[in-house]
Amino acid sequence: MTITVAIDCMGGDHGPSVTVPAALGFVRSHDDVRVVLVGLEERIRPLLGNVADPRVSVRHASEVVAMDEPPALALRNKKDSSMRVAINLVKHGEADACVSAGNTGALMAISRFVLKMLPGIDRPAICAILPTTTGHTHVLDLGANVDCAPEHLLQFGIMGASLVSAIEHKDRPTVGILNIGEEDIKGNDVVKRAAELLKDSGLNFIGNVEGDGVYKGEAEVVVCDGFVGNVALKASEGLAQMMATFLRQEFSRNLLTKLIALIAMPVLNNFKKHVDHRRYNGASLLGLKGIVVKSHGSADAFAFANALGRAADAARTGVLARITERVAQQQPLQESA
Amino acid sequence: MTITVAIDCMGGDHGPSVTVPAALGFVRSHDDVRVVLVGLEERIRPLLGNVADPRVSVRHASEVVAMDEPPALALRNKKDSSMRVAINLVKHGEADACVSAGNTGALMAISRFVLKMLPGIDRPAICAILPTTTGHTHVLDLGANVDCAPEHLLQFGIMGASLVSAIEHKDRPTVGILNIGEEDIKGNDVVKRAAELLKDSGLNFIGNVEGDGVYKGEAEVVVCDGFVGNVALKASEGLAQMMATFLRQEFSRNLLTKLIALIAMPVLNNFKKHVDHRRYNGASLLGLKGIVVKSHGSADAFAFANALGRAADAARTGVLARITERVAQQQPLQESA
Repeated sequence: MTITVAIDCMGGDHGPSVTVPAALGFVRSHDDVRVVLVGLEERIRPLLGNVADPRVSVRHASEVVAMDEPPALALRNKKDSSMRVAINLVKHGEADACVSAGNTGALMAISRFVLKMLPGIDRPAICAILPTTTGHTHVLDLGANVDCAPEHLLQFGIMGASLVSAIEHKDRPTVGILNIGEEDIKGNDVVKRAAELLKDSGLNFIGNVEGDGVYKGEAEVVVCDGFVGNVALKASEGLAQMMATFLRQEFSRNLLTKLIALIAMPVLNNFKKHVDHRRYNGASLLGLKGIVVKSHGSADAFAFANALGRAADAARTGVLARITERVAQQQPLQESA
Repeated sequence: MTITVAIDCMGGDHGPSVTVPAALGFVRSHDDVRVVLVGLEERIRPLLGNVADPRVSVRHASEVVAMDEPPALALRNKKDSSMRVAINLVKHGEADACVSAGNTGALMAISRFVLKMLPGIDRPAICAILPTTTGHTHVLDLGANVDCAPEHLLQFGIMGASLVSAIEHKDRPTVGILNIGEEDIKGNDVVKRAAELLKDSGLNFIGNVEGDGVYKGEAEVVVCDGFVGNVALKASEGLAQMMATFLRQEFSRNLLTKLIALIAMPVLNNFKKHVDHRRYNGASLLGLKGIVVKSHGSADAFAFANALGRAADAARTGVLARITERVAQQQPLQESA
């Protein structure tokens, strides 16, 4: 089986200068993939050099969605954007998945409009992988939905568990709900009711996970409202950057500390590899009738290639069928309840 | 002027073995403070040894609020708990502030019941100091209130700005609201309306701050719902712990890395000092008619002494008068609007 990934080459802070080399490297290191490079042909072709791999093709798209463009405008006015053409390839079965580092809001809006939602799912959710002390975890939603109802959080749980069970071949991944720990006020009403729904869902629901529990790996899937998830993720990123800055400052304080930094370099490099956020690049937009993966806008070629890998994995392991099946199982349960 | 701090010596994971030495050290290093050690006299006295400082006194309290005790029960049944007696000292003017490392929910409930709210403030908020790349920032609420109305977020802004202006002698500290950045969905409705109220409040409101902006020091005061604030804070703590674990693992991988760790020790220790959360211990419960500071339950003597310092600072700089004055200024504005 060959997996075809459509790539919005124009998206992201760096555009084709990052996406095209990442795509070429990705094809070289994966025998079972094809890529369709979507975007301004005159920008993409020169970056291909003398590559003549039958697994690499180019699809011209005349427009580009700007990173700060209002999603509604991108949806209405740019029918031939690289983003939309890439998503269309998925819709028409010419690609198994698409990846974009572009404007998140526009990607959500266009994906939803073009691909439509899976039956039984009301809203798409952004699901990312985060490192934990013991491995990694999946967290959703990370910003697509604010003001979620309990039923949406239940759907996030089902989608997240389906994703993990498909790509990691786990029968019943653990699912937790992000909450706060104060005894008398454990969470707001939405979270309390969502926890009850998750408890009765047949998922392997382990209850509340606090903010620090996410990074302790307390659950394989952590469900939350997009507002809370986005704030927690960005706060974590901010803290990690701050700690990295402080570490760099201490090691560059004077000649002696710089010498020590040289000696400690191999250890520090291993540490950096361990916490390198680029390894976790590529968030899945779940709930759509097609596989769409969002790369960080600032991704470099290494990070972008990881997002491509996630898209191919999702297609290879049949995530969509898994979600559809799991939601169908859920419906009668819900109705009989 | 002498500041008297009432200390709930029984609270926290370690009780008097931490709180009493911290209090003694605090008195030794501050000429203008007195402490009242509240709790089981038979547990506290032995820890005083031969200290006969007139600035250290003991107030017996026969009960202890357990760390996992439901706040409503602690409020109803334990009238002679160390926590309640310490708060009563503030109410009756025998102390200028009180500090507890005990059960947060119980501390909130008892403080609110005993001290009452300041006029114009509906709910107390937990305000903590967090480190930033450039210094530090104040964030509230961190868990006292879930499901806030926009008016509550406005009150948090006023209280936070008053606190910072008092203790840091700043005329108009910058105030931001924690939000997410996706263009089309910028935040939920409560946050949007709160931002409008803050814009019209006369505060030095700078608009949205994203999760990572907190640690970049984009605002001196960051306002948020207690649910979001608590999750973001705990997630940050979890990530910091994870990074510390990875760093330790890399440096203890083998004999060579252990040797490198020895060489790098002075630099690593400076880094540790920089990100040491104990330096930021002591969150203010704002909005009450009295100064109450919550220490982390797991605080050691160094951390607990920092919480004592915050309580004394708040009393010394007249934070309560500042908040009261600022809220009074606000009322006519609000009514005329």
